[in-house]
Amino acid sequence: MNSEIKVHDVGIIMNGVTGRMGKNQHLLRSLLPIIRNGGVRINENEVIMPRLVLTGRNAGKLKNLSIETGIENWTTDVDSLIEDNDYSLYFDAQTTDMRYESVKKAIAAGKDIYCEKPVATSTAKAMELYRLAAEAGVKHGVVQDKLWLPGLVKLKKLIERGFFGEILSVKADFGYWVFEGDTIMPQRPSWNYRKEDGGGIILDMFCHWRYVLDNLFSGVNALTCVGKTHIKKRYEPDGTPYKATADDAAYAIFELDSGIVVQINSSWATRVRRDDLFVMQVDGTKGSAVAGLREVWMQEYSASPRPVWNPDVEQPLRFFDSWTKMPAHEHHDNAFKIQWELFLKHAAMDEPFPWNLLEAAKGVQLAELALESADNRTWVTVPELK
Amino acid sequence: MNSEIKVHDVGIIMNGVTGRMGKNQHLLRSLLPIIRNGGVRINENEVIMPRLVLTGRNAGKLKNLSIETGIENWTTDVDSLIEDNDYSLYFDAQTTDMRYESVKKAIAAGKDIYCEKPVATSTAKAMELYRLAAEAGVKHGVVQDKLWLPGLVKLKKLIERGFFGEILSVKADFGYWVFEGDTIMPQRPSWNYRKEDGGGIILDMFCHWRYVLDNLFSGVNALTCVGKTHIKKRYEPDGTPYKATADDAAYAIFELDSGIVVQINSSWATRVRRDDLFVMQVDGTKGSAVAGLREVWMQEYSASPRPVWNPDVEQPLRFFDSWTKMPAHEHHDNAFKIQWELFLKHAAMDEPFPWNLLEAAKGVQLAELALESADNRTWVTVPELK
Amino acid sequence: MNSEIKVHDVGIIMNGVTGRMGKNQHLLRSLLPIIRNGGVRINENEVIMPRLVLTGRNAGKLKNLSIETGIENWTTDVDSLIEDNDYSLYFDAQTTDMRYESVKKAIAAGKDIYCEKPVATSTAKAMELYRLAAEAGVKHGVVQDKLWLPGLVKLKKLIERGFFGEILSVKADFGYWVFEGDTIMPQRPSWNYRKEDGGGIILDMFCHWRYVLDNLFSGVNALTCVGKTHIKKRYEPDGTPYKATADDAAYAIFELDSGIVVQINSSWATRVRRDDLFVMQVDGTKGSAVAGLREVWMQEYSASPRPVWNPDVEQPLRFFDSWTKMPAHEHHDNAFKIQWELFLKHAAMDEPFPWNLLEAAKGVQLAELALESADNRTWVTVPELK
Amino acid sequence: MNSEIKVHDVGIIMNGVTGRMGKNQHLLRSLLPIIRNGGVRINENEVIMPRLVLTGRNAGKLKNLSIETGIENWTTDVDSLIEDNDYSLYFDAQTTDMRYESVKKAIAAGKDIYCEKPVATSTAKAMELYRLAAEAGVKHGVVQDKLWLPGLVKLKKLIERGFFGEILSVKADFGYWVFEGDTIMPQRPSWNYRKEDGGGIILDMFCHWRYVLDNLFSGVNALTCVGKTHIKKRYEPDGTPYKATADDAAYAIFELDSGIVVQINSSWATRVRRDDLFVMQVDGTKGSAVAGLREVWMQEYSASPRPVWNPDVEQPLRFFDSWTKMPAHEHHDNAFKIQWELFLKHAAMDEPFPWNLLEAAKGVQLAELALESADNRTWVTVPELK
Repeated sequence: MNSEIKVHDVGIIMNGVTGRMGKNQHLLRSLLPIIRNGGVRINENEVIMPRLVLTGRNAGKLKNLSIETGIENWTTDVDSLIEDNDYSLYFDAQTTDMRYESVKKAIAAGKDIYCEKPVATSTAKAMELYRLAAEAGVKHGVVQDKLWLPGLVKLKKLIERGFFGEILSVKADFGYWVFEGDTIMPQRPSWNYRKEDGGGIILDMFCHWRYVLDNLFSGVNALTCVGKTHIKKRYEPDGTPYKATADDAAYAIFELDSGIVVQINSSWATRVRRDDLFVMQVDGTKGSAVAGLREVWMQEYSASPRPVWNPDVEQPLRFFDSWTKMPAHEHHDNAFKIQWELFLKHAAMDEPFPWNLLEAAKGVQLAELALESADNRTWVTVPELK
Repeated sequence: MNSEIKVHDVGIIMNGVTGRMGKNQHLLRSLLPIIRNGGVRINENEVIMPRLVLTGRNAGKLKNLSIETGIENWTTDVDSLIEDNDYSLYFDAQTTDMRYESVKKAIAAGKDIYCEKPVATSTAKAMELYRLAAEAGVKHGVVQDKLWLPGLVKLKKLIERGFFGEILSVKADFGYWVFEGDTIMPQRPSWNYRKEDGGGIILDMFCHWRYVLDNLFSGVNALTCVGKTHIKKRYEPDGTPYKATADDAAYAIFELDSGIVVQINSSWATRVRRDDLFVMQVDGTKGSAVAGLREVWMQEYSASPRPVWNPDVEQPLRFFDSWTKMPAHEHHDNAFKIQWELFLKHAAMDEPFPWNLLEAAKGVQLAELALESADNRTWVTVPELK
Repeated sequence: MNSEIKVHDVGIIMNGVTGRMGKNQHLLRSLLPIIRNGGVRINENEVIMPRLVLTGRNAGKLKNLSIETGIENWTTDVDSLIEDNDYSLYFDAQTTDMRYESVKKAIAAGKDIYCEKPVATSTAKAMELYRLAAEAGVKHGVVQDKLWLPGLVKLKKLIERGFFGEILSVKADFGYWVFEGDTIMPQRPSWNYRKEDGGGIILDMFCHWRYVLDNLFSGVNALTCVGKTHIKKRYEPDGTPYKATADDAAYAIFELDSGIVVQINSSWATRVRRDDLFVMQVDGTKGSAVAGLREVWMQEYSASPRPVWNPDVEQPLRFFDSWTKMPAHEHHDNAFKIQWELFLKHAAMDEPFPWNLLEAAKGVQLAELALESADNRTWVTVPELK
Repeated sequence: MNSEIKVHDVGIIMNGVTGRMGKNQHLLRSLLPIIRNGGVRINENEVIMPRLVLTGRNAGKLKNLSIETGIENWTTDVDSLIEDNDYSLYFDAQTTDMRYESVKKAIAAGKDIYCEKPVATSTAKAMELYRLAAEAGVKHGVVQDKLWLPGLVKLKKLIERGFFGEILSVKADFGYWVFEGDTIMPQRPSWNYRKEDGGGIILDMFCHWRYVLDNLFSGVNALTCVGKTHIKKRYEPDGTPYKATADDAAYAIFELDSGIVVQINSSWATRVRRDDLFVMQVDGTKGSAVAGLREVWMQEYSASPRPVWNPDVEQPLRFFDSWTKMPAHEHHDNAFKIQWELFLKHAAMDEPFPWNLLEAAKGVQLAELALESADNRTWVTVPELK
């Protein structure tokens, strides 16, 4: 019982991890658990072990984060690190406007790339990053965490099993009431509501809708989108009022290559009378399902009630009763952590990883086209990116 | 103890009452109860009493209906009746393609007009009926029953009381699974699924959406609509298969004059995971409500939960618990009967009745524009009718 | 990475912390958590850090408390401490009869004052303390913990948002059955039930009612109060019977300056058929709410049912179903700790703190007037204190 | 099996039965069922059979009522009837302002008297009626229906069984939200809200409180009452606004001869978070009970929970769970019908009937004193009437 375990060391520059997503999802819930759990196990004899250095612009925050996480290495000098051969992987969770330049530098230095979405503020720049990475021959991946939400994992299982027959339509509702901040603390950062700071629900969510549709159903052929700034005055956490300039709601219809029609409402100005903050209903010839973030409710053809229209009397059917909650057939780990493990296997062991900079550019493209559609009140077709 | 009650007699030609809607809603649930209840009471001393003659094309059906209802007068000779001065009001519940000609004749004969929707198969014809009626100086009204659905009546009360603050958006879902007919009996007539017979969910429902939006919120400025024939093969009640050629689902976005955005899905190919066959959610700055056909659930600002996005854990909030079912503050009579009573008061006593042929033409227009939008995958603006 | 944090040291004489309230609420749940949490944070660079000395009359209890809390400094020699310039703040949680003399001494020595309520056994003495503190120019505050009960914080939010429209009336019920002690252990100390020891529910609770009404609604203009000693014989924890001489229930009606009428029952001889030990119902033209200690149930105008009086049949309405539980929009810390933090900011940083000795004198006044009203079975008006 | 049944015929002049109470409670739910049931059975051989004549001022309404009930005799000429020896009993359910004169006439004519409350608009007049009836030697009774509400009947049983030990206090809440009428139809007649028409909740309810307290507990010694007109503008059913001038809420405290303190809120401007429209809690040394209109919840000494005051944590006790619903040990007939049967036995068979004009005068007196107390913001003692 004396087998040697081969450890694949992967040095990772963690840039921008003092922010909310970087810290909570990537550091605390993904890489630290991976490290504490002994790395990513490949097989009986091999393991991938991440080795981290924390970087950012605020030394005080970095120091605190270092103390909090026990990760000793930190620096504000990212540029030197990028030239440091001790680290082969560059991770970026900075604010969106800074990502393009930083990732470009890292590609130039031959680093593998893993980063948050959106990868850039325009499709052109996102595609440039993809081309540069391809030419440099580095590995690259972009966060597409929603794919590993338990609800969507279960939904994908139903699709793979042919539960739906032919899929006809998809209807989704995302959102909740984000408080203005005058009497109840807002739940999201203020920059989200300022166009000039890169805010807006279209930029935030349509990258997600793209890869969710691509991965669960099929490519997107055309779309129309109405963007609205429903709440025009909001308040900083300290009570200072500010003008909300970015869209806080988007009403969109998509036509997929497969002919499926997809209708998605995204809103930070709606109140939730549904099963979850995000629900996606898929209707097919043989059955329907409604996926939330973690649960899925399903209704097979023969379980479908036969309602008759008669508003004169109380509805005799209780529609929620005809659905069955899909059981948990497996444990669902944190979505970010799952994708990190997949990317580490890709980086260290060359395992396939399709969620790369090209796919990420498609997400940027969809947001860009949605904004264009909203500005011009028109339908737009989605040109293929390659 | 000698008070005389003045009775306003109104002779009504009931054309097309052997059909489903004509018989059930107009005859059995509206006019018969009115007659049996002693007419429409105006005040302590006056009452309007309808006097009916049943007409149609099928003598056998008419005779049966006469026996079933106890209404003795019936005939297949509508044309003679229209010249008969004993009847001042012409009601039409024939199939849509026959309505235009019949109503035109009745107007020409100086009859007041009350009829089912859609009033004609094109906006041009619908407007012509309106102009003819206006020129002839007859009274006219068209069924807009959804306005008196208890759920929408309650919703209108909330709007009138300022419950919502500023109304931001409206999201509605209409529909259910209409069975194909191979293994489970379909719930709707087959012609609904054939374009060539005047079928289609857009033609059927968009007249309704128009007056619902006009009456609850504001005029419609522009719309886009995706129409789909999800189920392409259906079966007659006797099992004969037929090709479904009409749209059975429509995904639409409307912009209202007031700036409110409205998103409505209508589908006969969806399964219902919501409170009712039709639900309409209204979100406003001060509160939200979800109306079904008969019930309304409301959520005031301070009752709105403050969800935080964290798909890593089970959602700790139970979203349905934050809504209050609006109590029944009054008795809600059959929607068709209420509108009949209002029209009879209009016809006999000159009380106001805004739901006339012009308003009905607007409904035909909206359906027409929706079909145009669906055919061309485009946005269309809604020209004012007058 | 070299930022200095400025620490504002505040030396506090904790007098009377071996008692139940002093120990549990002030030491264990307020100051110790503040200290362990790194003091009261002012901004990124400043913090207020309390430094405590425990004092009292019983050396043994003080020593035990020192061991239990880890606070090393303790002494029974309060008088010397009061002359000690190392301590700038005097806190008093002694029994009421000792407070006046001790606080007077501390003011004379130039200490800032923070203390439990009631501050004195008469309005005259309470006002004298206020005048002395004002003349000495020391800072002063008095515990008004009920203001930070989560239920009342939520209720205040509803008031601030205009949820109630015009507020019409307030009805409150406080109390529960305090067992006599013969067969079930009493839940409260025996002196509470002896007038000669400063007991009585009026003295105990009416200070609270005063600041609750003042802070949530408006000043108190007049009141009447019936005081009762319902249970006349009680038992010490060791089983010795004693005569209960103090009022254990008070039935009061208040008229506020704003015209709102307030009706409050306080009783240690009642059994609880309500949502909580304390509930306060506020009825307004636009809505009503019932606040408990931690939760609030609300009912908006349109959610109000329309009951009709008919005792012949079972009540068809379920009245509890028409109320919505107000969600927790923020975390609610211990009420005593919140007020300690506010007072420390007042003492160290001059931030506003309206809950001072003058306000406390008003509480003593209300209790005094209530006793006068109860003795004479009369209404009393409340003279303004200044 | 040929026993003769002796029928005691009682001719009753039903004056004022076209009003809501007269028609529904007295005619439809009391006397008609008694008649249809074969009269009031005395024993195996005797029965009392009422024989009715309907009277009032509106011939049309009387005729309709005659048709509806099948009672053939009706007239608008009450004066002649009063002289008619065919009728021995005069019943009065007219509006309050007309009762005194009518009852006086009937007494003068030697009729037995049974009538609605309040018997007169002043204690002086009420006492005069009592004196006249006593002098004339006629029998007399007044409606005190609340005594036979199932909830109060059950409560009385608990009192009689000694369930409470010594009764300490009574707390009652009566009322609900009576809609103003602008957007929701009011549930009560408009005159209730006009002082000039004899309206007001004090006049309406305090007669009831008097006999409830007298019969369940003991005589009333003193009271104070705050009267309020919370809603100052209301609307007729037809939408016409009017000024509400009468009190719509009353907050009262009573001291009973037995030393029990009673606190009662009565309000038409409150929303109901309790078990019923009227609830009365009785606390005693051995147990407590809460009576609604039909149900009673009880809590015996040993079932009483032992709450400890700690608002820092969620209340661990669920207070509603500690109460037991008292089972229905008998059938509870309509309260009005029960009292009619008792009065008929009194009239025909001389059985005791303590709820006479003297008792009714006490109710008028209590309302009068409550209004006096409210006007002067004072306590008033209740002089004995005899």
